[in-house]
Amino acid sequence: MDADEGLRRLAALGLPEPDAQALWSHFDAAEQRGKPSHGHARILWLEQQDGFVAGAEPVLVEDESGFQRWHGNGALGYVTLERALARQLADPPRDARLVVCDRTFPTGMLGHYTRRLAEGGLVALLTATSPPRLGHPAGGPSLASTSPLSIAVPSSAGDPVVVDVSMGAVTWGDVVAGLAGEDELVPFGGEHAHKAFALAVGLQLLVDALVRDPGHGAVLLVARPQADPVPALRELAGSIRLPGDAG
Amino acid sequence: MDADEGLRRLAALGLPEPDAQALWSHFDAAEQRGKPSHGHARILWLEQQDGFVAGAEPVLVEDESGFQRWHGNGALGYVTLERALARQLADPPRDARLVVCDRTFPTGMLGHYTRRLAEGGLVALLTATSPPRLGHPAGGPSLASTSPLSIAVPSSAGDPVVVDVSMGAVTWGDVVAGLAGEDELVPFGGEHAHKAFALAVGLQLLVDALVRDPGHGAVLLVARPQADPVPALRELAGSIRLPGDAG
Repeated sequence: MDADEGLRRLAALGLPEPDAQALWSHFDAAEQRGKPSHGHARILWLEQQDGFVAGAEPVLVEDESGFQRWHGNGALGYVTLERALARQLADPPRDARLVVCDRTFPTGMLGHYTRRLAEGGLVALLTATSPPRLGHPAGGPSLASTSPLSIAVPSSAGDPVVVDVSMGAVTWGDVVAGLAGEDELVPFGGEHAHKAFALAVGLQLLVDALVRDPGHGAVLLVARPQADPVPALRELAGSIRLPGDAG
Repeated sequence: MDADEGLRRLAALGLPEPDAQALWSHFDAAEQRGKPSHGHARILWLEQQDGFVAGAEPVLVEDESGFQRWHGNGALGYVTLERALARQLADPPRDARLVVCDRTFPTGMLGHYTRRLAEGGLVALLTATSPPRLGHPAGGPSLASTSPLSIAVPSSAGDPVVVDVSMGAVTWGDVVAGLAGEDELVPFGGEHAHKAFALAVGLQLLVDALVRDPGHGAVLLVARPQADPVPALRELAGSIRLPGDAG
């Protein structure tokens, strides 16, 4: 899919032009980073959804120096995180700020947000919930989202390091695309899968405990760095690829 | 080792009685939770260290409503986290607070801190750095700590859920005890070990970017919950053991 078609189809969903542009940038970045389940195919997926209100505007419902709460207000999660992101860059915290986003789904490739925060000079940590897909490695019902965790750290030289890891061995997008069976969507880690399961449960509960309006949400931590550890790590790593680097 | 011997040996290191008691409780809890590398053996280990000042008092160097910075000031990391923990329980944040602890090492079993914060009604997320032990799954130098991540969420009924996961396939304590070879201390996950490696690097850089005085440190997030998701998760899980539950 090219940009013209993508933007046209997003506009046809009723999205205002800047939001359509932001979503296209997101989906296209996901394609380029080898995460097609967050890529162009999401446009077809959105065309089949009816749970969002095109043009709805997320609301900043609490705004303290170290804390913000947003509410999606019917908007797509992508749009809510875009608004929260823009606000952090325009008005960065003095030290740190926790940003809780109620009713924020879907959120896509979390590194797409944390990367821009790090490029803007902020340390960022972000997680988000989605329908439960992961059960205990020993079996039983699905108890947690794939619970992605993204961490991005700025660098005075070269790219930030951008971690973006889901706790599943495959993605839900792979299942939808027929590339993996639903039985393969288990916590990653093989004999240590209890670790990824624990992380998924912890991140799920972290979000679930902090949202005020029940439903899928996101929790973002932004902080001003006091040090610049990435250049030394890159020097030590040499030719080793660090998380988020182009493949 | 029994409590009498443990407390006597900790006191002989010059630790004030309340700190000796806190460390004994920590090591004994680790034994009981099947984490002996953070347990009684640490007393022998401490007897061989000379990098700490018994009786040194950690300092709260910055104190905003949503942010605190502590400095270990020569104290053991255990003591610094005990002070930071006590302060959060005595003066919980209105919404959320990021607590950065400079020069805070060793910190032990992170769930020992987050569990008590959750028992005190706070959501907690904690990570800490230690000497680099994990390299890229494809090889090369050690680039990150085992980078434990602990998340604890309170519950109105029954125990909190307490996640405490390190990114290594084995622990450094296992290596020291001869239970595992140093070559086995790699990111967990087998074919997905790049995920645990990425998490380790991200958590390492998060701490390294937020400390002001270079060295090992800890980053703690505490927040007031707005919801109580644990009872419903326990009901859904039935007999499945959730993270942090007694084995």
